[in-house]
This record gives sequence, C-alpha cells and structure tokens, in this order.
Amino acid sequence: MGNSIGKLFTVTSFGESHGRCVGVVIDGCPAGLPLTVKEIQQAVDRRKPEAAAGGTARHEADKVEVISGLFNGFTTGAPVCMLAWNKNTDSSVYEEIKLTPRPGHADYTAFIKYGGFNDYRGGGRFSGRIPAGFVMAGAVAAKLLKLSGIEVAAYTVQIGNVKAGPQPVSKIKRDVYKSPVRCVDPATSARMMAAIEKVKAEGDSIGGIVEVIALNVPSGLGEPVFDTLEGDLAKAYFAIPAVKGVEFGSGFTAAGMKGSQHNDPLAIKNNKVITLTNNSGGIAGGISNGMPVTARIAFKPTASIAKVQKSVNMDTRKNAELTIRGRHDTCIVPRAVPVVESMTAITLCDFALRAGIIREVIE
Amino acid sequence: MGNSIGKLFTVTSFGESHGRCVGVVIDGCPAGLPLTVKEIQQAVDRRKPEAAAGGTARHEADKVEVISGLFNGFTTGAPVCMLAWNKNTDSSVYEEIKLTPRPGHADYTAFIKYGGFNDYRGGGRFSGRIPAGFVMAGAVAAKLLKLSGIEVAAYTVQIGNVKAGPQPVSKIKRDVYKSPVRCVDPATSARMMAAIEKVKAEGDSIGGIVEVIALNVPSGLGEPVFDTLEGDLAKAYFAIPAVKGVEFGSGFTAAGMKGSQHNDPLAIKNNKVITLTNNSGGIAGGISNGMPVTARIAFKPTASIAKVQKSVNMDTRKNAELTIRGRHDTCIVPRAVPVVESMTAITLCDFALRAGIIREVIE
Amino acid sequence: MGNSIGKLFTVTSFGESHGRCVGVVIDGCPAGLPLTVKEIQQAVDRRKPEAAAGGTARHEADKVEVISGLFNGFTTGAPVCMLAWNKNTDSSVYEEIKLTPRPGHADYTAFIKYGGFNDYRGGGRFSGRIPAGFVMAGAVAAKLLKLSGIEVAAYTVQIGNVKAGPQPVSKIKRDVYKSPVRCVDPATSARMMAAIEKVKAEGDSIGGIVEVIALNVPSGLGEPVFDTLEGDLAKAYFAIPAVKGVEFGSGFTAAGMKGSQHNDPLAIKNNKVITLTNNSGGIAGGISNGMPVTARIAFKPTASIAKVQKSVNMDTRKNAELTIRGRHDTCIVPRAVPVVESMTAITLCDFALRAGIIREVIE
Amino acid sequence: MGNSIGKLFTVTSFGESHGRCVGVVIDGCPAGLPLTVKEIQQAVDRRKPEAAAGGTARHEADKVEVISGLFNGFTTGAPVCMLAWNKNTDSSVYEEIKLTPRPGHADYTAFIKYGGFNDYRGGGRFSGRIPAGFVMAGAVAAKLLKLSGIEVAAYTVQIGNVKAGPQPVSKIKRDVYKSPVRCVDPATSARMMAAIEKVKAEGDSIGGIVEVIALNVPSGLGEPVFDTLEGDLAKAYFAIPAVKGVEFGSGFTAAGMKGSQHNDPLAIKNNKVITLTNNSGGIAGGISNGMPVTARIAFKPTASIAKVQKSVNMDTRKNAELTIRGRHDTCIVPRAVPVVESMTAITLCDFALRAGIIREVIE
Repeated sequence: MGNSIGKLFTVTSFGESHGRCVGVVIDGCPAGLPLTVKEIQQAVDRRKPEAAAGGTARHEADKVEVISGLFNGFTTGAPVCMLAWNKNTDSSVYEEIKLTPRPGHADYTAFIKYGGFNDYRGGGRFSGRIPAGFVMAGAVAAKLLKLSGIEVAAYTVQIGNVKAGPQPVSKIKRDVYKSPVRCVDPATSARMMAAIEKVKAEGDSIGGIVEVIALNVPSGLGEPVFDTLEGDLAKAYFAIPAVKGVEFGSGFTAAGMKGSQHNDPLAIKNNKVITLTNNSGGIAGGISNGMPVTARIAFKPTASIAKVQKSVNMDTRKNAELTIRGRHDTCIVPRAVPVVESMTAITLCDFALRAGIIREVIE
Repeated sequence: MGNSIGKLFTVTSFGESHGRCVGVVIDGCPAGLPLTVKEIQQAVDRRKPEAAAGGTARHEADKVEVISGLFNGFTTGAPVCMLAWNKNTDSSVYEEIKLTPRPGHADYTAFIKYGGFNDYRGGGRFSGRIPAGFVMAGAVAAKLLKLSGIEVAAYTVQIGNVKAGPQPVSKIKRDVYKSPVRCVDPATSARMMAAIEKVKAEGDSIGGIVEVIALNVPSGLGEPVFDTLEGDLAKAYFAIPAVKGVEFGSGFTAAGMKGSQHNDPLAIKNNKVITLTNNSGGIAGGISNGMPVTARIAFKPTASIAKVQKSVNMDTRKNAELTIRGRHDTCIVPRAVPVVESMTAITLCDFALRAGIIREVIE
Repeated sequence: MGNSIGKLFTVTSFGESHGRCVGVVIDGCPAGLPLTVKEIQQAVDRRKPEAAAGGTARHEADKVEVISGLFNGFTTGAPVCMLAWNKNTDSSVYEEIKLTPRPGHADYTAFIKYGGFNDYRGGGRFSGRIPAGFVMAGAVAAKLLKLSGIEVAAYTVQIGNVKAGPQPVSKIKRDVYKSPVRCVDPATSARMMAAIEKVKAEGDSIGGIVEVIALNVPSGLGEPVFDTLEGDLAKAYFAIPAVKGVEFGSGFTAAGMKGSQHNDPLAIKNNKVITLTNNSGGIAGGISNGMPVTARIAFKPTASIAKVQKSVNMDTRKNAELTIRGRHDTCIVPRAVPVVESMTAITLCDFALRAGIIREVIE
Repeated sequence: MGNSIGKLFTVTSFGESHGRCVGVVIDGCPAGLPLTVKEIQQAVDRRKPEAAAGGTARHEADKVEVISGLFNGFTTGAPVCMLAWNKNTDSSVYEEIKLTPRPGHADYTAFIKYGGFNDYRGGGRFSGRIPAGFVMAGAVAAKLLKLSGIEVAAYTVQIGNVKAGPQPVSKIKRDVYKSPVRCVDPATSARMMAAIEKVKAEGDSIGGIVEVIALNVPSGLGEPVFDTLEGDLAKAYFAIPAVKGVEFGSGFTAAGMKGSQHNDPLAIKNNKVITLTNNSGGIAGGISNGMPVTARIAFKPTASIAKVQKSVNMDTRKNAELTIRGRHDTCIVPRAVPVVESMTAITLCDFALRAGIIREVIE
C-alpha cells in the first residue's frame, strides 16, 4: 500500500535496491505526447552518482527501458511502464544489518512493519535508488508541462552550513547540472564541495537544502481545502528519502513577520494581475496565483556512515554495535536535485490535468 | 474537488464562512465508539476566538449537531455528519472585496479558479471558520486513537519573535488550554500576549509556530513510498489556512548536521527498541518507530489587517487601494493549536485503521 | 467506508431511514451552474410513494434543503451539501426486528458487520429512503449533462411477469412520470398496476426490470481497462437496494448469439460514424461509441412482506418466526425509476468531467 | 486513467497485445505470503488457447516473471510486479484495421478516445491478452484468500444455446480444467464443443455464460452504500473483454418472483446462521451473509469473425467493407473462466483486507 501518487496522473512505484529492477507505471499520461527513451535516460542520468558530488561508489548504468504505453514515438494513452534493471548489486554486506538495524535508517521500521519479510538488501524499498523511478516519471511530466510553458528548476541552496545566496532563475536553468553540487554560484559550489570532502574524510555524512522554482504556472491550480497545491507538493517531497522539512515562499520565516510585511501587494502589469513580492511562494488558499511557485526542502545527512554506531540485535534483543559497510552517499543533496524537480513536475502535471490545461494543448 | 482527506477514515468538509453552516462527514468511523455531542462541542470550543488570544471579534456559538451516524450513544459504522449553523454573519463588508482581492488572501485565486462564482463573503471556503469542521472530525479521531493509548498534544512555540523553550509533555497535556496563547510557560505566554497586543494596536497581524507531539504511536504506522506518515501529515497540515512550512523532528536544522550527530542511536529499554535521541521525530522511512512523533508547523501572519494595502480592481483591471473592514484575528496561531491536533489525530487515525489497530480495540 | 462514489464528481451519502435526515455531499460540481432548490425538489418528488404505484404508506415530505455550495443561484465550486429531514418516522415496530432479522433484508448482515451497533430502525442505512439522496445528486448531475445535450431517461419494462415492448424514447421522456408504474404503454401500465394490486392483496411483493437510455452521449467516455463505462455504471446501479442484475445492450441474450448477428455494423451517416444496430448498448471496450447507452437493471421483490416468515433470534441463537409490521413498498420498481436515472447521470457526469466535456461548456 | 482496481489490494494493469509485454503491479499484498513463480504460471497456463476449446491459433508461451516484491520465496509487502513478454506477435495484418475499425470491437472507440495514437495492433489495450495480467494478480489473491479458507470456482454454464444444468461444487473444483470448454458435465461439454466447432467452420463466433461461486466467504464483507460486494464484483467483471451482463443469485429471474418465493428463510444450523435457499447469491445489502457468493457473467460472441463485415474508413469518412485476418478465438468463454475466477479473487481479497481478515491469518 502507499506506492501510488496522483489522481489523474498516477505514478506507481515498484522495485528494490538489490532486486531485479526499479521502475514505475504512469497511468493517466495523455495520448499523443512525442517521447523518446533518450529523453528519459538523460533525466535519469542527472542523478547518477558519478555526475554529482557526494555520491555512492555503486555505479549503476540505470539504462531505462519503456516496456508499455509508447508506440511509434508517441504516448498512446495506455499506462507507461518504465524500468531500469539492477546490475551492480553487492548484497553480501547486508546480511549483517538484517538483524542489526542502521541508526537513522528505515531498517528497524521496515522490519517491524513487514514482520521481517522486507527485502533488506541495500535498504530495499527504502533505498536512494527508488527515486530513479520518480525521475523517469518526472521526465514525462516535465515534457507534458512544457507544452503549457510550465518549467521546473531546482538547485542546492545549502550543504551543511554552507549557504548559497539567491541565484537568477535563468542561470539555474542553464547551469545547475554543470555544478557537481548543483549550485550555480561557483564560489559557493566550491565551498560546498569542500564541506562534502571534509565529512567524507571523517567517515561521516552531511545534510542540506534544495530550492525549487516552478515557472509559468497558471493561476488556478490546486484544490481546496485538502488537495492544496502546497499539501500535495509537500506529500510528494516527503516521498524522497531523507527529507525532514518543506516550506513554501517565506516558509518558517513567516512566523516572525507582520501581515503588513508578509502580504504580497497585488498590481496590474501588462494587463495581468501580479504580486509585487512573492512571500506566498506563488500559492494562496492552496491555489496557484500565477507567480513562480517556490519551495525549499530540507534533507538530513545520509544515515549510512562509516563510524561505529549504537544499535540493537533484533534477535537477541540486546544492545549491539554496528559498523556499516557497503557503498553510500556522503551527501544525498546533489543527487536529490533532479528528484525534487521530478516530484514537482509530477504533482503540477496532476493538477494541470485536473484543470484541463494539458489536454487542450495536446489536442 | 479536493474536499476529502483520508483513505479509511475519510473526512469530507463542506460549508462556508457566511453560508448556512460549516460541517464534515466522516466515512469510515468504526461502529461501537461511545460518543456524545458534548465531547465534540468541547473540542470545538477550544478554537473559539473568545477562548484564545488574538481572536476575531466575530463570536459564533458554533453549536455542534450530529445529524447522522450516531445511535443510542454509539457510532453505527455509518457516515457521521456533523455541523454548526452560522449565526453571527455580517456580510455587508465583503461586497467591497468581491472585486478587490485582499493581499495575502485567497480572494484572487478563488476568483480565478471559480470564475467569480465563489462565495467571497468572509472568505467563503477559505475562511478560518472551515477548520471548525476539522476539529469536529478530530474529536472523533482522537477518541478512537485513545482506545489504543495514542494521544496528541500541540502548543504554541513561537509568536512573532517570541520563542518558547521546550516544555514537558505532561504539562502541555494538562495546561495548554489554560494559556490564552496556548503556551504552557507562563513567562513566555505573557510575552506572546504582549506581542499580539502590540501588533493589534498597530492594525497589523503576526505569525507563529505550533509544535505537535503524538505519544504512544506504535511502530509500523505509515506506508512507503508515497503515503508516508510525514507526507500525509504534512498534507493535512497544509489544509489549515496560513500554514507555510512543516518539519518533523530535527526538521530544517538537519540540513546543517552530520550523520554522526543526527542518527538516533538504537537501544533496548524494558525489552523494547527505542532511540536515545529523537531527531527522526518518531518516523523513519515514512513509518513510525515507536518514539513520539513530533512536528512543527509555521503560520504566516493573518492576511486581513487594518492598514491600507495595494490591490487591484478585477473589473477595471487597474491598481486599487484597499482598506479591509470586517472582524479578523490578529494572530491565528492560538486558535490553530486545536486544529493542528485535529489534523494530526485524523491522519494517525487513518493509518491506525490501515494497520488494523483500532478495529481490534473496539472489537 | 464505501459511502462515496465518483472520481471527479464525488457523491458522499449520509443519513438513515429513521435518523434525523438523509442527504449527500457532492464534491466536484463545477462552479457557475445555475441551480435552484426547486429543481432538485421536483426530481426528489418523483420517487415519492404517493406518486408511484406500489409505494409505502409512509409519506415523507422530503423537503430538500441545500446547505452549502450554492450562492446567488449558482454553484460555487464548493461542496454541495443537500438533505431532507426525516419527519414521519414510526420506529416502534422495529424493536422486534432488532434481534430477528427480516429474510431477504440486510438486517442480518448489518448486525454482523457493525457488531449490533447499526441503526436498525427502518433498515437504517439499508433503507429505500437512502436513494432520496442519490436523486438529489442526480438532479445536479443531470443538469450538468444537459449543458452538453446529454439526457437520461428510464422506464419500467417488467413488473412480475408483465413485460413491456420497446417504447419510443421521445414518448418515454415525455410521459414516463405520468404512468404510476413508470411504463409509457397504457395497456401494459394497467396490467402492471393489476399485478401489483394482486400481490399486495396477498400480503406479498413483486420484482421487475427498469431500462435506462442515455442519449447524445459523445463517443470517448469511459476508461479502460478497469474504470469502464459499463463497470462504473453497474457499480452505481448495484448501490440501489434490491438490484440483482445489470446488463448493457444485448446483455444476457448475447450469450446465445453469433458474432455475425451481434456485431453492430459501422456506417457513415451525416458524416458521423454510427452503428446500424445497437447490440453494444453504445459501449465498446468500455468506452462510449456515440450511440445511445442502454442498460437493464433487475430488481428483486421487496423483502418486507406481510406473510409469516422463518427467521432466527440473534440472541437465543434459535429459529424464530417473524411477522413484519411497519409500512413498506409492494413493488419498489416504479420508485426506482428516478433512482436509476440519477445513478446513470451521476456516473456519466463523472466521466464527462474526466473527458473535459462539461468544463468547457460552463466556461 | 482507469488501469487500477482495488482499494487495499490494488492491481494496476499495463502492456499491450503486440507491445513488449503484458503485466500487472499489485500494491497492498501483505508481507509473508509464500509464493512461487510456478504457482502463478500454472494459473496463467489455464487461459492458454491450446488448453481451451475455441481458442486462437496465436500461441504465446506467456512465461511469467516476477520482477519485484518477492524475496526468499515470500512476499515482502512491497509492490509485486509481474509480466510476460510477448513473443509470437504478427502485426502485419493490423495495418488494415488501423483506419477501418472492426465492428463489435473497441477499434473505433479507442481511435476516438486516444486521437488515433492508440496501439491498434492486436487490439492493443483492448486485447484478450490483457487479462493474462489479471490472472497473475488473481493467483496471488487466491492464495491470500485460501489462508482464510475462501475458495473461488468458476465454470461454463452456457455456450451459444447449449446450457449446462447445475453442477456439484466439489466436482467443479476438481474437474473444471479437465474439460476443454470448462464445463464439468461430459455430455454438455461435448455439445458445447460441437457448437464451437460448428460456428468456427462457418467463420463465425459464439457467446456464452460463466458462473462463479465463492465458498467460505465470511459474513461481513462489502461496504454499503456504494462499495457493495455486488457493485465492486460487477465492476471487476466488466473489465473482462466481451462481458455484457452480470447477475448475482437469482439475478434477472428475481424480476418475475414474489417476495415470499425470493426471500431466503433464515435458520440456525450448527449454531451458525444460514439461509435455507440462496436467491440472494450470498449477499444482502451489499454485504456477504456467509452463504456461497454466486454470480453469472454473460459474454458476447467474439467480435473478430472471418465473414465480410460493414465498416467505415476513418480517413475517407466513407462506408467500407472489412475482412478480418489475424488469429482469433471462436469462443472466448472457456478461456474467460480463469479470468472470472481471478477478478472474483482480486475483489474478495480487497474486501477481506478491508475487514482485517487476511492480515490476521498471516500474522
């Protein structure tokens, strides 16, 4: 249960870290979208560890196959099933954690929830590999959104205590994947790299924050009172492993503000209603207002570290020490950037379909 | 669309601020729960403006009626429909905002989304009155949870720039509703009161942060990968008007931490697996781990302020100035505390039913 | 659980036969539909027992109130909550059946499912009164459909062994509610009346069949492979008490046919693709083909009869005899005709919204 | 859209007749179920054309692969993705029908719905091959149900005008797959075979009826008022290609019956409440009553026949003649028997999970 998201653009995730594959089925992709495997592959490649700083030493080809829903270069309206076969698995090191859960990881909760039947190898369903499927679906969503001019861009704004100042959106869109930490400011990027290298040398890990911006979102997306744009985006972000917080627009700083500071003044510009500031993050009452939708997503440090940690033995019910082996990310944030983009695109696509926007464009 | 939440404990909201009523239908409440209108009334009374600092001058009796699903003092397994009739409505001041949307409010987005057919009086569906229905449903959820020993407590940790230190849970549970700002530390409470009074005098408003703690949540609640406990809680919180951010456990501070600091060490205590710290906020991999579930929810300042603001006229498509009349909250946070509790209870109840926990208790 | 139907036009039912009311909430009704309480009242009046042959002696005013979602004569896009308060309840006779379930009724299964907490008075949630709410929702759906020219008409084709021959659709639309048995052929109507009177005199009850036709349904409604037009219509019909069978087009007679007889030849008429016969009932592969959608719904005889019947005592766990008192329908079929129309309209409306049809018309 | 069914045991279908594969993802299968690929293969083999009379000449190995959710011989609680790769496709004959839809088929409606982008080869998503995936899911559901003693058996009761009398359930369970037409009475079986051979020689096709019986279904499954057991079963059956009608228990014959004949008398037997007849088909008020659940499903004759038929050319918008080539079933009924069983098992499994039955057994 719980492996599907979206009402009209429904993404179902399947697969395991050390099983045969990771993949998704999209149900609700409109017919007639030109789509190639290459496009999806390019998106998936952006979260490859070799392309991003802080990544694991496990190098998967992650070669995408589309096994349904595509015909003669176009989507058919049928479910689009996409997957990548796992190749480079080394499960030997996981026997140890079978009964000694890694602190900060889902090993313990998965063991309890599934009565010990969960596939614990490489974290199984809780692995950082599962989002590879999210990115496949996100690539399709992004292409659908682009038909209406909607674009999504994310970048790293914080790693450890290194913070980036605001960056121009055009630069983010152009350069973000050139930076190994996915931060477009070269100086900050270098300091972020250094922070990652430092904790890596310590056998430790580090967290960070990703900011995402959706441009050209028309006003009117989002459904009050429960299926709000913030609510469904937040839910989508919390599906990404290691996320601990989500905020929109002013976010937590809003708590310290006065209404007269926070309220975004309305104005007419080119006969269009705009706001002169964007504390709302492009959303009011759960509905988009036509301004850029902005969110910030906080990631905790990777749970798997090289240091000795306190754990328990589930069998003997006694305290135990654990030294994690295997290959892990020092910092998940750079690799999470395309995943954040994908979850944003998937959610916006769902709301755009509800609003009848995309259909019209294809037809 | 979008007015229902929950898979097995489904709450559907209806009603408007200045319409005939606000209410909810709960579908999925198990049969056999002893329930009185009085219990629900007590919960609803906690968000009354006269009971909380910073509240509006509009005083509604909010007299709850249960019009289905209750028989001989027990729930029947049928949908529970509950509502409160609106009595004290003064819609005269809203004609002005019909075409001049209030900055920071949903007036503009609602106008766009519903083509001008939305009930704009008092904010209509986007009013702070809608959560009165959430609290009715939350009272039922809380009672169901209590059968399994699960309890939810929330309190104000920040208003403006006044922050409360950590408080003992037992004290929160006992005293929170004695404080007009819902903060159990008397000194901080007084400073929060002063902060509210100050901005009120200025014709302004102020934001804040609510912390919520769920106790005795058994391990195993939550469904990976999309229907995570964090994801569904966050979605529920963003249904509360004015929420801009949600974090669990360490939240945004996790971004600056190392894995060796953040990972909660596991240990055996009384033959039970616990963690020695709770940076995870009681959730790992989207699943509860048996520790207290903790979250912090950021509220922006109330949008309706007495000061002159910049807006537009939707009819003439020109810039316009707006002075809001009507009765409004200076700070929504104290009144939001029971709403945060309610959304927490509703979400946990849904997951507890999925896990088969509540059913067993009733039977 | 199970009290909502529809994905984009979602109807949630609440209320009980002898509780305070019966009602529905519609979530997903587009904004801008002109709607009056009077229209809904007219639809509800069509299933009044005094208007139809075979009806119960319990006469409820069934005065409809719309308590949300309507403003200035138009729908607002918010949930539409409608209800009728129960007035004429006589629950005294139901104490007897509390522990002695009526054969053919849901008394026993409700007792088991809800552990004896169900509201058994008048059948509670399983009463023939619950569909009054369906008709309220159906009236809104029908009005939405009419914007696209889609019309739904139903009539009685069989009561007991009295069968009606095929009737012209125009006549059905015009005259069906003039016949007390909802059969437009006067001679057959009279024979059906006689059949009902005969079994009534015997203290017995009788079943029948309703046929429904949806006109001007555009091709393309319905979602393969599971959310087929037939599948969702059938599910909607089985929500009507006493339904035992549903067939579309040729239905069960198709079993004895050859492909060369059954296949509807395609042809061009006025530059439109039609079929020369309509064995498919307007649906192929779960999707409408532009021809009239036709279905037949079989109703069993009313379970409540005056004759002595064999039952059991749930308390003593012994066999028992039961003589049902209370006021009941001799034949539910005439009163079911508007309910069949309503469930058809609700389902078509949901699919029309999925296909983006209705939205365009309102806008 | 529309490719998923089930609330807690959710089956998502994907694949095409002449695409790369047909498959399903099950979300909600409890962890800890022992499961082998061999078991699923055996179920799938039962709908192979070579195993059943009237089957197509296209012989697919239909070798099942389980690509997620299975670990060390047990289900893990993660989504179970299963598929069979298509091998024996000959798409050459389908270019013709691309623009000349086959009467009685979904060619025309699919063309309209998907704007001509649908994969028309072999019927694409509307092929009789899609149910191979249903059977994979059904095998898992059946195994889960068996943990609670619930068993599902189906058999052919009519082919063309050859009808079978009632058969003992024990015989059906034991012998049904020994009969090439899936009818356990040898004499009737032979006559059904002859009927199929006759129409095959004529280049024609023929319909029939399948009866299904679910044994040991506990009382209490099904959710009123909309998610009734009949409603959700009917919806599941209408997902099977060629189904035109569904009835439960007495079905359409109930229309001609009196209440005194139709009401199933209740009685105590071995301290259990039973009914002395089973006109209700084991369901009252949408909820199972503990008696066998019985349904009959009507299939139309296969649309693809060898005879010349009237169609249209979608391009020229003129009438056209069509002679279908390719390999097709003369009678789909024998191959549909395991599909009916599967859809029954899938639906019952979903309701059993809602009622908390299966979980308890596994734990």
